[in-house]
Amino acid sequence: MKEIKEQVEACRKACEHHLSKELLPFWLDRCKDEKNGGYITHFDKDGNDTGEDEKSMLGQARIVYIFSSAYRNGHGGEQSKEFASHGVDFLLDKMWDKEHDGFYWLTDRAGNALINEKIIYGHSFAIYSLSEYTLATGDKRGIEYAEKCFDLLQKHCADTHFGGYFEMFDRNWKLKGPGAAGGDRKTLDVHMHLMEAYTTLYECTGKEVHRRKLLETIELLIDKVLHPKYRTGVPQFFADWSVAPQIKFDIVWGWDRFSDDGSKGNAEDNTSYGHNVEFAWLLMHALDILKIPISEYGDIIQKQYDHALADGIDWEYGGVYVEGSHAGGVYDKEKEFWQNAEMLIALTQACEVLDMEKYWPVYMNVHKFVFDKQINHEVGEWWPLLTRQGEPIWTHMSHNWKINYHSVRSMIETLNRLRTIEEKV
Amino acid sequence: MKEIKEQVEACRKACEHHLSKELLPFWLDRCKDEKNGGYITHFDKDGNDTGEDEKSMLGQARIVYIFSSAYRNGHGGEQSKEFASHGVDFLLDKMWDKEHDGFYWLTDRAGNALINEKIIYGHSFAIYSLSEYTLATGDKRGIEYAEKCFDLLQKHCADTHFGGYFEMFDRNWKLKGPGAAGGDRKTLDVHMHLMEAYTTLYECTGKEVHRRKLLETIELLIDKVLHPKYRTGVPQFFADWSVAPQIKFDIVWGWDRFSDDGSKGNAEDNTSYGHNVEFAWLLMHALDILKIPISEYGDIIQKQYDHALADGIDWEYGGVYVEGSHAGGVYDKEKEFWQNAEMLIALTQACEVLDMEKYWPVYMNVHKFVFDKQINHEVGEWWPLLTRQGEPIWTHMSHNWKINYHSVRSMIETLNRLRTIEEKV
Repeated sequence: MKEIKEQVEACRKACEHHLSKELLPFWLDRCKDEKNGGYITHFDKDGNDTGEDEKSMLGQARIVYIFSSAYRNGHGGEQSKEFASHGVDFLLDKMWDKEHDGFYWLTDRAGNALINEKIIYGHSFAIYSLSEYTLATGDKRGIEYAEKCFDLLQKHCADTHFGGYFEMFDRNWKLKGPGAAGGDRKTLDVHMHLMEAYTTLYECTGKEVHRRKLLETIELLIDKVLHPKYRTGVPQFFADWSVAPQIKFDIVWGWDRFSDDGSKGNAEDNTSYGHNVEFAWLLMHALDILKIPISEYGDIIQKQYDHALADGIDWEYGGVYVEGSHAGGVYDKEKEFWQNAEMLIALTQACEVLDMEKYWPVYMNVHKFVFDKQINHEVGEWWPLLTRQGEPIWTHMSHNWKINYHSVRSMIETLNRLRTIEEKV
Repeated sequence: MKEIKEQVEACRKACEHHLSKELLPFWLDRCKDEKNGGYITHFDKDGNDTGEDEKSMLGQARIVYIFSSAYRNGHGGEQSKEFASHGVDFLLDKMWDKEHDGFYWLTDRAGNALINEKIIYGHSFAIYSLSEYTLATGDKRGIEYAEKCFDLLQKHCADTHFGGYFEMFDRNWKLKGPGAAGGDRKTLDVHMHLMEAYTTLYECTGKEVHRRKLLETIELLIDKVLHPKYRTGVPQFFADWSVAPQIKFDIVWGWDRFSDDGSKGNAEDNTSYGHNVEFAWLLMHALDILKIPISEYGDIIQKQYDHALADGIDWEYGGVYVEGSHAGGVYDKEKEFWQNAEMLIALTQACEVLDMEKYWPVYMNVHKFVFDKQINHEVGEWWPLLTRQGEPIWTHMSHNWKINYHSVRSMIETLNRLRTIEEKV
C-alpha cells in the first residue's frame, strides 16, 4: 500500500497548502468590511473588490460558517474566530428584521435592506452557520438566532397539508404567489440544506425537537424528493410533491443555467452529480450526528454514488460534469466550482467508510482537475466555471452566490478525511 | 308556510326556555369553584357535586368557551362574562406549565398537576376557547395564550414529513411512543377540532398565518381524513395517513365504547353520524369566517348529510344513532348526548343554507327526541347515554368529558339559526 499512502500524503499536503497558503489568506486579506461591518463578497479575477454595493444574507451567513468551521478545525487561528464574530455582528445588527423577525435577503454594504423578503434557502444557511459559530466559539448569540430561525420556519413555512416547507415569503411571512414567485414550489435544494442545517443545530443543542425535525426532513427527502427509482435528486416540485418542471425563480441564489426566457432544456429530467454526492455525504454526516448506522440508508447512498460515478466523472479531461438525466446521459459537460468541491468531500468520505480501492482513483481524477484547472493558484480562489477542457468561462473570484462556502469547506472536510485515510492505509 | 312558521317558533321558544331557564342556571348555580378557582365539573344525576378531586384542562377550557359564547350571544348577561374570566384565571395560573409551556392535561381541584402530559386534543380546545373569550370580552389574555398554543403546535406537533399533527406528547413535548401511547397515530377528532380552533383564532386575529394553517387543515381533512368515496369521517390513522384500526389510547377524552381489552368491533369500518354532521357545520362556519363560498365544498358537505340522514336518524323512536359503517348499516343504535346536540345545529344550518323543506322534518324528529328524552328537565342538563328507546343508561349530569360544551353550544347555535329561519319562512 506504499504507493497509495504516498498518493494520499501528497493530496493531503496539497490541500493543506492550498487552504493555509492560498484560500484562507485570500479571504483574510480582503473580505472584512471595516467600514460597514460584515464581509465584502465581490472580487474580480484578480481578487480586487468590484465595488458592487450589496450584501446577501446567504453570502454573509456562509462566510460566518466558513470562519467558524475553520476555527473549530484549527485553521486560521484566532483570526478566524474574530472574523466569524465580525460577521455575526452584521447579521444580527443589520440583517435581522426587528419588526417581523427573520433575515432580510439583500442589503447594501451599509446594511440598508434592498430586498426585505424572507427566503428559506437563506434561512437554512443562517441556522447552519449560526449553530456552527456557537459550536466553534461558545458565543451563545449564534444558537439563539439559529433557534429563532428554526421556530419561524416551523410556524410560517412548514406545510401541514403535504409536509415539507414552503420557501418564498414576503417580508411579513405571507407566502408568495405561484410560478416564478415560487410560493407554490418546493425544492430539493432547500430541503437538502435544511437537513444540513438541522444536523448542526441538533449537534449544538441536543434538543429532542431538533432531532425529530431532522429525522422528518431526512425521511421526507428519501420519500418524496429523491427519484423513486434512481434515488438521484429531483430539483423542483409542486406543493403536493408532484414533480414540477424546473423554472427560474424571481429570486435566485446561484447560476443554474436557464435560457433568456427562464426556460430550461430537459426541465423534467435533470439531476446534478455534484448535488447528489453532496446529498450523500451530508446524509452520512447527519446519521453520524444522530448516531444512526449508515447501513440503514446504505442502498440509497450507494445508488447516488453509482449514478454520479457512472456518468458524472470526465475520464478524459478530469473533474465533474454539471448535470444529466436520471436514467443516464450527460446534458452539460462544463465544470463548475461547487460540484467539484463537493465531489472531493464525497469521494474521501466514500474512501473512508465505503471502499478505498474503488473510490480512490476517482478522487485522484477530481483532485488533479481541481488543483490543475479549477483553482486559480496565483490569486487563491477557484474559477467559477470552466469549459470541459478546463479553460475559464466565468472569471470572477467571488460574488454573493459563490464566496468561499464550497471551496473552503471542501478543503477543511477533505483534509479531515484524508488524514483519517492516511492513518489507515 | 304558516304551519311550519309555527313549528319553528315553538322550537325556538323551547330552546330559549331550556337555555335560559334550565341549562345556564344549572351551571351558574353550581360550577364555580370559589375555593380553588376554575370550575367544578362532576355532578351526579341530581346535579350534586360528586366530590371527584380532578379538573381536566379540556373541561375547564370548554366551559370557558361556553360562558364566552353565551356572553357574546347575549345569554346569561354579566354573570357569563364573569364566569368565563374566572375560568381563564385558573387555566393560566394553575394549568399552564411555566417551565415547558403548554397546558397540563389533568390537575386536582386545587390545581396540582396529576397528568402533566401535553395532549393536542385539549390544546385545540384551549385555542378555541381562549380565542372566543377574547372575541367575547376583549380581554387580551385569551388570545395571547391561544397564540402561544398555536405556536407550540407548529413547532412541536406538525409532522413535516406527512403533514398534519402528532397528538400525544410528554410534558417536555417529546413525542410519545406508538400504539396505545398514541405517538404514531393521527385522528379525525384532533384535526377536525383544529379546524374549529383555527377558525375562531383567525376570526379573532385576522392574521395571515392563522388563515393559511386553517386552509391547510381543511385541505388535509378533505384529502386524507375523509373517506375517499363516502366522504364520511375515518377515526384513526398512522403517521403516513394509512387507515389504522381504531384503538383505545392510554389518555382518553370521551367514552367511545371499547371492549375491556381495548379492542373495538368494526375497528376498520366505523363512522359517527353526529361527528360527520358536526364536521359539516364546522366546515361551513370556517368557510363563512374565511369568506369562501360554501359551494366550493358543496359536494362533500352534501355527502356527509346524505350519509347521516340515510342511516343515522331513528325514525321509529327519534334521535341519532351512535355509529355505523361508511358503506351503510348501523352498528350502535343507542342515543348519546353529543351526537344529538351536534345534529340539531347541523340540521338548522342545513335548513338555513341548503334546503328547508328537506331538512326541517328531520330537525323536528331530533328536536322532539332531545326535548322529550335526552334532556333531564328536572335537573337542567342532558342525560349522557340512553337506550335506543330513550331510557337512561348512564345517568351523571356532568364529568370532565361531558360538561356543557355540546349541550349549551347546541342551544346557542341552534337558536341563532332558528331565529334566522323564522324570519325567512
